Amino acid sequence: MNIGIVGLGLIGGTYAKSLRKYPYRIIGIDIDQETIDYALKENIVDIATDDPKTVLGTIDVLFLCLYPTDAIAFVRKYATYFKSGMILSDVAGIKRYMVDALDMYHDDNFEIVYSHPIAGSEKIGIKHSNEAIFHNSNFVITPTKYNTEEALMLIETLAKQMGFKNVSQISDVSHDNIIAYTSQLTHAIAISLVNCDDESLDTKLFIGDSYKDLTRIAMINERLWAELMLKNKDFLLRRITMFEDELSILKDALASKNSDKLHQIMADATIKRSKIK
Amino acid sequence: MNIGIVGLGLIGGTYAKSLRKYPYRIIGIDIDQETIDYALKENIVDIATDDPKTVLGTIDVLFLCLYPTDAIAFVRKYATYFKSGMILSDVAGIKRYMVDALDMYHDDNFEIVYSHPIAGSEKIGIKHSNEAIFHNSNFVITPTKYNTEEALMLIETLAKQMGFKNVSQISDVSHDNIIAYTSQLTHAIAISLVNCDDESLDTKLFIGDSYKDLTRIAMINERLWAELMLKNKDFLLRRITMFEDELSILKDALASKNSDKLHQIMADATIKRSKIK
Repeated sequence: MNIGIVGLGLIGGTYAKSLRKYPYRIIGIDIDQETIDYALKENIVDIATDDPKTVLGTIDVLFLCLYPTDAIAFVRKYATYFKSGMILSDVAGIKRYMVDALDMYHDDNFEIVYSHPIAGSEKIGIKHSNEAIFHNSNFVITPTKYNTEEALMLIETLAKQMGFKNVSQISDVSHDNIIAYTSQLTHAIAISLVNCDDESLDTKLFIGDSYKDLTRIAMINERLWAELMLKNKDFLLRRITMFEDELSILKDALASKNSDKLHQIMADATIKRSKIK
Repeated sequence: MNIGIVGLGLIGGTYAKSLRKYPYRIIGIDIDQETIDYALKENIVDIATDDPKTVLGTIDVLFLCLYPTDAIAFVRKYATYFKSGMILSDVAGIKRYMVDALDMYHDDNFEIVYSHPIAGSEKIGIKHSNEAIFHNSNFVITPTKYNTEEALMLIETLAKQMGFKNVSQISDVSHDNIIAYTSQLTHAIAISLVNCDDESLDTKLFIGDSYKDLTRIAMINERLWAELMLKNKDFLLRRITMFEDELSILKDALASKNSDKLHQIMADATIKRSKIK
């Protein structure tokens, strides 16, 4: 089986590395010559090219490891070069937008399995790609009515081979609703926490692990994340409001010196968080 | 030199372990017999007792590794047993409250050096004490007008011996202002983030490292943290408001689909956070 990976960045590079130990031919596609050279030199891929047309006719499974808008642009540009029966998958952190944008291809002779590997790093680029980031991670597939069981099963198998712990299926709407909370809201919070620093004070001498952990993801790939947040705006705005309401409850307990209420809020959080490994 | 440690919990246990490699006699004081037995069995202390009166007359430096109110209660109960010239220090995460409560002792024959080791864990108890949590961490001393250079220097030296990277001095007011941001606000956020989960959805299949990192400290010692937050209420309320204002800016940029503004917010956060190691 020939597996194509478009975009050999952090995620694409990790897809390639994770699948390398299986008997697949891994074909990398990237617009950056330095990335291509690195992927070949480090034996991360079998073949690498900056010209998709030269290899698309041989690819059985194609992973688009690109920003959402770039992934859509790639399909629009190269769909006619896809091998008949090819399975296409993506990695976008928002699914309704992808499903809507690519719906027009549902009659074509390739099948799209929309996926979201919930893993990453604040670092970017193939040099930081690392199989470890997939271990114990979640992989979500948002099936459409056009999907075949075979294609879903194939992507699920590949995800498990890549080292993902849980592979689950859910609707694109539910995906976008939940990911607005677990991923986009967390980034919005980290960014706001860093930006509300009072820089007249020497904050850095007072920083412990808590602050470091809560703000690590504030070092953010702004093009990717602005896109993800804007394309999931309504769910994210709702989740921000839910968070603000919860913070207000704590703030009110504090302002009214309601120690019992504070204890209860903290006990609730401890129980809820303890359920997550 | 005889060093006494009152409260052999996570922090007290780590103080003892960190100072163990130096030629001090470490005397542990705890109300829990199981903790005393464990400290002796594991050779974390030279002596351990649940009766402070039997050892206080021999102690040169006494660390109160207790919750703020317990630390104050300890001094009130046992001040008359302190060895003349003893240096007393604490570990409380709030300093104005400690300084105010213990100000009445400034004429006594012991000297108080108020300290805050900015290190910890979501785990509690001597069994989780671990020297590693002090490495690369910050240690803050809030001197008063009654402090001697010798006493300040002694506590600074002991902090460095314990493995703290930066030992700094600042006023109790500035400490409480900054710590409201770096520590208490981060905990308030983590708690609120966990508590605003929409539990009708299967959130756990969508969780990545970002969410785990941002919520780890939501598993919280409620008695300690309710006390810290309430006793630093005004600074913390102001910091929560500053954070809310910052989050509102992001929310407005999102609601108005202002991509440029979102990029700028993210770029600012990336630069600010990159300055922290």
